[in-house]
Amino acid sequence: MNNLRTVADVLEKSSRPLLCGHIMPDGDSLGSVLALGMGLQSVGKEVTIVSSDPLPDLYRFLPGIDEIVVGSVPDRKYDLLVVVDCSVPERLGSTITPTVDSGLPVVVIDHHVNDQPFGHHNYVRSSAAATGEIIMELLELLGVSINLDIAINLYTAIVTDTGSFRFENTTPETHSKAAELVKFGVPVSRLSNLIFGEQPLKSIRLLEAALNSLEVSDCGRIAWISIDRDKIDALGAEDQHIEGLISYPRKIKGVELAISFRELDKQKVKVSFRSKYTVDVNFLAKKFGGGGHVRASGCTIQGTLQEVKEVVLKEAQEIFRGC
Amino acid sequence: MNNLRTVADVLEKSSRPLLCGHIMPDGDSLGSVLALGMGLQSVGKEVTIVSSDPLPDLYRFLPGIDEIVVGSVPDRKYDLLVVVDCSVPERLGSTITPTVDSGLPVVVIDHHVNDQPFGHHNYVRSSAAATGEIIMELLELLGVSINLDIAINLYTAIVTDTGSFRFENTTPETHSKAAELVKFGVPVSRLSNLIFGEQPLKSIRLLEAALNSLEVSDCGRIAWISIDRDKIDALGAEDQHIEGLISYPRKIKGVELAISFRELDKQKVKVSFRSKYTVDVNFLAKKFGGGGHVRASGCTIQGTLQEVKEVVLKEAQEIFRGC
Repeated sequence: MNNLRTVADVLEKSSRPLLCGHIMPDGDSLGSVLALGMGLQSVGKEVTIVSSDPLPDLYRFLPGIDEIVVGSVPDRKYDLLVVVDCSVPERLGSTITPTVDSGLPVVVIDHHVNDQPFGHHNYVRSSAAATGEIIMELLELLGVSINLDIAINLYTAIVTDTGSFRFENTTPETHSKAAELVKFGVPVSRLSNLIFGEQPLKSIRLLEAALNSLEVSDCGRIAWISIDRDKIDALGAEDQHIEGLISYPRKIKGVELAISFRELDKQKVKVSFRSKYTVDVNFLAKKFGGGGHVRASGCTIQGTLQEVKEVVLKEAQEIFRGC
Repeated sequence: MNNLRTVADVLEKSSRPLLCGHIMPDGDSLGSVLALGMGLQSVGKEVTIVSSDPLPDLYRFLPGIDEIVVGSVPDRKYDLLVVVDCSVPERLGSTITPTVDSGLPVVVIDHHVNDQPFGHHNYVRSSAAATGEIIMELLELLGVSINLDIAINLYTAIVTDTGSFRFENTTPETHSKAAELVKFGVPVSRLSNLIFGEQPLKSIRLLEAALNSLEVSDCGRIAWISIDRDKIDALGAEDQHIEGLISYPRKIKGVELAISFRELDKQKVKVSFRSKYTVDVNFLAKKFGGGGHVRASGCTIQGTLQEVKEVVLKEAQEIFRGC
């Protein structure tokens, strides 16, 4: 594993880097890639940013987001592929994954638990609450002056991946960095409203429906919600409105493991896991071909909603020895 | 208005201070009074802390909370009354308010907007996100060594009054102080779960009921929920489970003013106001004899739920010129 100075050196030598984050982009992935892209541009690099997946409306406020190319990698000349916040090539998405083996040198900057990062140069620090924290340090090494636009991207990266400084990953360093960023004039309340606060009315109605589906295991330690496709469509809600719903089963006193079952189609279910203190949900998701963090992970499983619920709940109950 | 050094001097000269916060105690009030109490004890003072109102279960985890005397002021000899996080004597509660005029010197330490604090010595800084921020500085002036117990109380004060660093009042100073406190080993995730995350199942069921009552004005800028007494009682919920429900109408995109109507009894309604960017809800609550902050305030109004809703919504709609 390289140190951050080595990664900075590689970036300094590049003139035309191609930057990308992961599929189903979130605040850390987008904020990190945008902050790095702006920083590299400010020191004279010709930067291209690409995303395989469409960008969620939620993050439309991020400065520079319109510069991200969605879909295929533009046909330009690159001298470096820089991957942020992504631990496996598959999570770059079908339009970008092949670029990893195209002969370009690859840099990976990430905070997911990962013993075998796939870049030629890798900087992985799982103790960082967000990849945005690492990018902030990297920009300093690159001699980039942080401005308000960069600060908003970095702040968004940090605030989303820490659930607004609430998750276990929050460190003194996280707050120190936030203090620095807020000094640039980051509009804290407005961003919080945009990220956590503001939801379309249909999203609140979807919450009502999700709460209707809420079930709790007899032992009270596992709680889950199920959202079927028809319900989502009937409310005109999109997948992005569903992301946060898992926090509700997780909120319940005594619940250690929260699960959300979201029907993608009649034969495919996206399963999300959240734990509070003890259960390693990265391990649990891996059993179904997924992954993530110790306290937050997910996977996609083939089968009907009912079938997937049965197999997942069985596995979950075994953790608590027949709960 | 005194400076904080003067207040520290007054505290230093006291041997047997009586400390208190406000009625319906919240995280800032309790965390501040406990941190100050522990700090003063550690430098040899004989401290008594009293609360007119019972202490919410939610805050049972606060170190030292069992030392707080609930109800009447104990019959001891005091040489100073120290009031934290409270801008008017009435909000001390019926058992404590008379003490203000009992001849004891009174110190007021607060962050609510207040031109005329009622103490003999006052330190009011409305730019502080929480009274806890001021207490942290005061403890330093008093030469108190912060320990983990004090840090947990101060962190709780700050995290609750900033809504986990999301509200407009959050400053770089707020994050710097949080960074310092987290260094003492404050269990961020556990506290977040206790304060924001964990809710009894009945509380989630109450949310479902509240979402059922949600209404939005035609112009989409005012949203409100109504919770009647019977519903609360049927679910076995307590008032403390209702506090956070107002965040749901506030969450809705386009809503600037959120209101919650909570039936206290058949002739009395507690009204809470929250605004996002423009409406001064302190001003609005004052019209009904209440008060608070620019973005969060409340009042209690005599009348049936229906009557109170009508009069309050009329006033609210006038702000938006007939919205």
